[in-house]
This record gives sequence, C-alpha cells and structure tokens, in this order.
Amino acid sequence: MIKASICTIGDEILIGQIVDTNSSEISRALGSLGIRVTRMVSIADDHQAIIQSLTRELETNDIVISTGGLGPTKDDITKAALAEMSGSTHYVEHPGQLAKVYEILHARGLDVLDINRAQALVPDTCEVIVNQFGTAPIMVFRFPESRFGHPAVLYSMPGVPFETTNALPDVMEDIRRHHRLTAIYHRNVMTYGMAESALAKKIESWEDSLPEDMHLAYLPNPLTGVRLRLSIYGGAEEEEKSRTEAEIDRLKAILGDVIYADGDDTLEHALGAILKAHGKTLSAAESCTGGEISHLITTVPGSSSYYLGSVTSYAVPVKVKVLGVPQETIDRCGVVSSEVAAAMAEGVRKLTGSDYAVATTGLAGPGGGDGVNPEGTVWVAVATPKATLTKKYQYHNDRKRNIQRFAASALHFLLTAVKSDLSI
Amino acid sequence: MIKASICTIGDEILIGQIVDTNSSEISRALGSLGIRVTRMVSIADDHQAIIQSLTRELETNDIVISTGGLGPTKDDITKAALAEMSGSTHYVEHPGQLAKVYEILHARGLDVLDINRAQALVPDTCEVIVNQFGTAPIMVFRFPESRFGHPAVLYSMPGVPFETTNALPDVMEDIRRHHRLTAIYHRNVMTYGMAESALAKKIESWEDSLPEDMHLAYLPNPLTGVRLRLSIYGGAEEEEKSRTEAEIDRLKAILGDVIYADGDDTLEHALGAILKAHGKTLSAAESCTGGEISHLITTVPGSSSYYLGSVTSYAVPVKVKVLGVPQETIDRCGVVSSEVAAAMAEGVRKLTGSDYAVATTGLAGPGGGDGVNPEGTVWVAVATPKATLTKKYQYHNDRKRNIQRFAASALHFLLTAVKSDLSI
Repeated sequence: MIKASICTIGDEILIGQIVDTNSSEISRALGSLGIRVTRMVSIADDHQAIIQSLTRELETNDIVISTGGLGPTKDDITKAALAEMSGSTHYVEHPGQLAKVYEILHARGLDVLDINRAQALVPDTCEVIVNQFGTAPIMVFRFPESRFGHPAVLYSMPGVPFETTNALPDVMEDIRRHHRLTAIYHRNVMTYGMAESALAKKIESWEDSLPEDMHLAYLPNPLTGVRLRLSIYGGAEEEEKSRTEAEIDRLKAILGDVIYADGDDTLEHALGAILKAHGKTLSAAESCTGGEISHLITTVPGSSSYYLGSVTSYAVPVKVKVLGVPQETIDRCGVVSSEVAAAMAEGVRKLTGSDYAVATTGLAGPGGGDGVNPEGTVWVAVATPKATLTKKYQYHNDRKRNIQRFAASALHFLLTAVKSDLSI
Repeated sequence: MIKASICTIGDEILIGQIVDTNSSEISRALGSLGIRVTRMVSIADDHQAIIQSLTRELETNDIVISTGGLGPTKDDITKAALAEMSGSTHYVEHPGQLAKVYEILHARGLDVLDINRAQALVPDTCEVIVNQFGTAPIMVFRFPESRFGHPAVLYSMPGVPFETTNALPDVMEDIRRHHRLTAIYHRNVMTYGMAESALAKKIESWEDSLPEDMHLAYLPNPLTGVRLRLSIYGGAEEEEKSRTEAEIDRLKAILGDVIYADGDDTLEHALGAILKAHGKTLSAAESCTGGEISHLITTVPGSSSYYLGSVTSYAVPVKVKVLGVPQETIDRCGVVSSEVAAAMAEGVRKLTGSDYAVATTGLAGPGGGDGVNPEGTVWVAVATPKATLTKKYQYHNDRKRNIQRFAASALHFLLTAVKSDLSI
C-alpha cells in the first residue's frame, strides 16, 4: 500500500490561531485513492525545522504533501528550505504561474509588484503545477530512489484553505498518473437517529457476511448522524458496482428509515431535493432552536424555490400573536409540550400557506428545566396537508450542542414525514 | 523558553474523518502560559508508531501533551504503549477515577461493566489527574533527566473534544505548579470591519511605540473580525495592568467603533450584555441570512430575557403579509434595497413590540445577481425607537460564507446603532 504524510507549515497553526482543516481534506482525497496516511505534522515557519521534518517524512513515506509557507511576506520561507533540500542552484521563472499572478492581481484592480512577480520563481529542481486559484505555484519535487532508499515525491501546496481545496484535484491527478493505484469504488449512505454502536449491532450479521473484497466504514458525525461507506477493492466496473448496489439494497432493507439519503447528502439537501422534485413548499416555527433550522434549510442553494420562511417565536406573546397559538393551550399544557409544538406548526403553515411546516419548542439550557421537562427536552411537530405529527427528543446539558441536535432531529422527523406523505 | 509538542492519536484523524480541534485549543492554553509549541503530530492507533513518535517528541521538548486513544474499545491502545515506554511492570486501580466511572455511568442509567472498570486501571509509573468529565483518567508520566537528556513530562489526555476542553485547566494548573514560567498578562480587544492589513497600517505608529516588554498579536477570524491581543511579559501586578490599560486606551482612541468589545466577547455576547444591562428588547427580520442572525443571538445563554423573536421572510408574500412591507415599495425599489430592509426592520419591531430590530435583504448566491445588485450584496437595516438606519455591504460569491458575513455585518451594525442610541 502506498504511504503518505501530510505536513502543514506555519506559526499560525502552532500558536492555535487557526484550526488546520487542510490536513483532513487532503487525507480524505488520498484515502479515496486507496493511499494510507501514516502521519500528519504541523511545523513552524523555521528553515531548519522545515528541512528536518520534511526529510524525515520522505524517509518513511512514498508521498509527502506539504501546505503553507508560500505567501509573499517575509514569514513564509518554505520555498528557500525546499530549494536547499533539493540541491537547487538557481531559481527559474515559471511563465504559466506568472501569467496567473498578473491575471489574479489585475482582476482585483491591483498593480503587480516585484514581491508578487517573485511568486512565480521556483527552484530549478522542481516541476510546477499551475495554481489556478492563487499566486503561489504548486511545486513537485521527485526524489530518486538513491536519496531516501525508495522513490519519493514531495508536493508543496499553498496553505490558504480555498486554494488548497480547489487545487487538490490537480495534485490527485498527478498522483494517479505517477503511481499504480488499486482501484476502489466507494458507495455512501447517510443514517440518522442511531448511535454508531447500536448501528453496528443491528447490521452485524450483514457486515460479517460481506465478501472479502468489500469493506464497511462508519463515519460518525456527532450532530448529523453516521455515514456508512461501503468500499470495494479491485475496480469500479459494472460488475463491482452492481455487486455493491446489491449489498446496499440488503442494508436498506435492514435499516429502513434510519437511512435518509444516498451519497453524501445532508438532511437539508435530501429534504430540499424531494420538495423541489414534487413542487411542494415548506415553512418553520422555531422556539428553542432560535433560527438554526431555518438557517440550515437556507444554506442549500435554490432553497428559495420551496422555502417560504419562518417565525422564531422566542417570547410567548409572539407565539400567541404571530403564530396564533391559543394562550389557553399554553396555560394548560405548558410552553414545552406536544400541543404547543403542534399549534406552532399549524400556525406557521396557515400564516405562510406552505404545504409542510415544522416546529420546535424545548429547553436548550442552561438552567434546570421547567419543572416538568428537564434541560435538553424538545418537542418537534410537523404539519402536513393530512395530519400533524409530534415527537419528543431528550438530549443533554450543552446549550450549543442541544440547539444543533434539536435542529437535526427536527429535520430528520420532517424528512420522514414528508416521504411518508408523498409515499416515497 | 519552555518547549512543548502536541500529539493527537487516532486513525479517525489520519483518515480525515474528523478535524483535529484539540491541538489548537491546547496550543492556545500553552501559549497563554508563555510556552512555545514547536510541533503538532497526528499518529495512528498503532503501538510502535505511538512509542516512536512520543519518544521523539520527548527528546526535543520539555512537555508533551497527547490526546486520544484512551477509550474502552479495542481500537484504543495508547495506554499499553505508555506502559511499555515508561517501563511499567503492572497496572493499579485509581480509586478517584473509578468513583468517577461509577458516577458517570449511573447518571446515564447504565451498568458498570468490566470494560468500564478497566478505564480506572493505570500503569504504576504514572500520576493521575482525575478526569471530571469522562471515564478515562489523565495520566502524567514524569521522566528524569537521565532518560531524554533533560527532565520531560508527558500528559496523556482523553481525545473527546468536550473532555479535552474541560480537563485542560487541570493540566495547565499542574504545568504551572511544576515549571518556572515567565508571568504574562494578556489583554484582548475585539475588532470588526477592518482587514488585518488595513488594521496594521492604521495602528502602525502606536504599535511601533509600544515599550519593549509589550507585544501585540493579530488573531484574525475570517468571519467575525480580528482579535488584538496585547501581552506584557514579566508580571500581572497592578503596575503591569495599569500600563497595559493605558496602551489599550490609546488604541481605542485610534480605532473608535472598530473595537466593539473588551475581552473575548463575540458580537452576539457583547450585544446581549448591553441589552440586558439596559432592559431593552430585540427582534429580527431575515431574508438572505435565512435564520443565521436569530441563531447567533440565541446561542447566548439567557438571551430569552431580551430577544423576542424573528421572522424569516424568504418568500415575498411573507414580507408583505407578515411583516407589512408595502408591495408598492418592493415593486418600486426591488426586494434587495434600502427601503425594503427598512420596512422589514420597522415591520418586525411593530409586530413583536421590541425596542430594537435588525433586518437583512440581499443575494447570498449562487446566481449572477438580480440585474441591479451583484451576488454578495446585502442591505442591513436597524430600527430604533428614534430612527431607522440602513447600510449596504458587498461580499463575494460563496453562499455559506456570504450568509455568515452578512449576519456578522448585521450584528456589528446593530451593536453600533444600539450603543449610539443608548449613548454608550
């Protein structure tokens, strides 16, 4: 198996100023090619530290990808370190990258200074992949077997996450061209509502019966559910694909509604796709979730074609006056109740004229609950043209997490209700 | 200067399943004690890899903090590796941690199994700091000078971010007790609305005139502004504090409203504190921000005492019917306009009876704009008892970022207007 290491260079990571998101993104890209990431290292903007660390990673890996330390300012000294460790005698100007420097700065209405032009200078020991999204080139150093005991390659990428993300496919393409990779076909399904351990128990006999060339991975997200990834090693031809689909069908029969989408869809994307396909509209009434459900729904591009809007009724008078929740219901059942959730959903559905509506009322905390319900309780209601459904969820005592979990639970309950209403 | 390294252990990081947020958090805590973090390393759940990497980090650092690999399942093998590298001959049960295991599992209504009790077993070569927030103890291995050429200490912490965050102060306290640290006093102020480079230029002469023992750091957050941290080395006595305050006063005179809060406050916390102190209430009307402003406001504990609620008027009829925006204004000025933003803010203020209201209407994208306004345009309005103010902001072409930047801009505009209205 091909081994790789990822090195992020920059004081801003070591002092905790920014969280390194590049490494996990690069790691997922390498993993999808079947390459194993053995280490990730973050090092300072320091000439000797860069040389020592990169050398060590190249000694024990086939591929090293470094990010960062390539900006025009004096802090960024990666290029000089790479020149030294690769035995470069001089720099050469790369015309393709230079053209890109001019293009980017002119588009921003800026003059091209010497400091900008120098970005296109690279050690004579490297190949260049033009960075289409920034001024610093991607440098590729290929070391012969004699240097580290095995052929090794170092990709030096810019560290700005936007540039790393967008330039990554070009680097992966280069890796694909230069290495014999085992073909892997991945198939994802998204689940919600079961913890990883419960899920594992439920599908244990199915998992144990998988053929030798298939492998299941659990990719849990504490807030939005567990992604299941079924990988088949050996190819992505029709035969492998149909064998994978047959296993996915068996899995779906076992898990039912717990699987809410194929692929990598989020709850809000899966919901949006169904509403759009069926020409249905949606609205929301939020109390304890405070706008998070509406925010999630509207992160989906094109959501304005099915989402009409919401009311965040944080104060009781807003529930009564704007949503039309009867004061009597609140007095009788309490604000956090099935009845109030249902009245909120029905109220916002009527107010906006939407086909479906979702509502939440609960206690995100902090504070010890309302005497009846403990902190972490939420009632979710969904109003459809035919019925109003409610469900209670119980979580813990962390306000921010509760808000996110309440919102995810509400979206999953809504998605299940919409599917049932549309008989899909 | 004392040197430290941070090692995260776990396959889930190397395969890119989760982003490592522990390292940056630990790094900031160490930095605030004046300890320099030289490297961060992520390694697999592999016995030899753990021993080799930790040994190497201990050879070149005074302090190594590792996280992860301490769970009850078979994947987690850190403890055995630590036992081997510290020359442990047997495990001992730690009564304090065992009591915590029982307490935590009983609170969740779970039985204590052998696998859980084993969490309280530690190598005889370590000290224990009881983990108050989880079942796995924090193990402290103190190595004599003879082992690595200098005294070195290894803290092995659990990797669950909630536990790492909450247990971190106990580890820092242990470090404080065992090392001679240079006292540092930090003073933060929060800014919004100026890029790091523009800020640096504006305060250049002030920064250059700072005394030798003071140091300024720029801690930019791409969405919520730049935090400025002024540190004074040598102590946190009255004299240092008053000298620091004098410099902060000079800085405030230069930057004015760009500084929106002292300390580490977010915009929504700073806003909430003022509203609470003055007994004022707030509501919101959102179009393009889709609920994000309301969500941010309600992440603040206790926000129900000043926040009444919001209307997300994604569809035009909701703007007209619920918020009372005149259809004529929409036809004449367009949905994305100063006039519609103002009518939305005034409408939701009237609907909820709040003292203040904020509203947004804009184009988060994707799509090329509405013919008048390009993608990334937002109009923000604030209605106060005395006046309605509007302001236009222009951002770029990334939907998710636009939503977040729109929301942050709106909160900053609102905060400035509220301060002005209350003459503070």
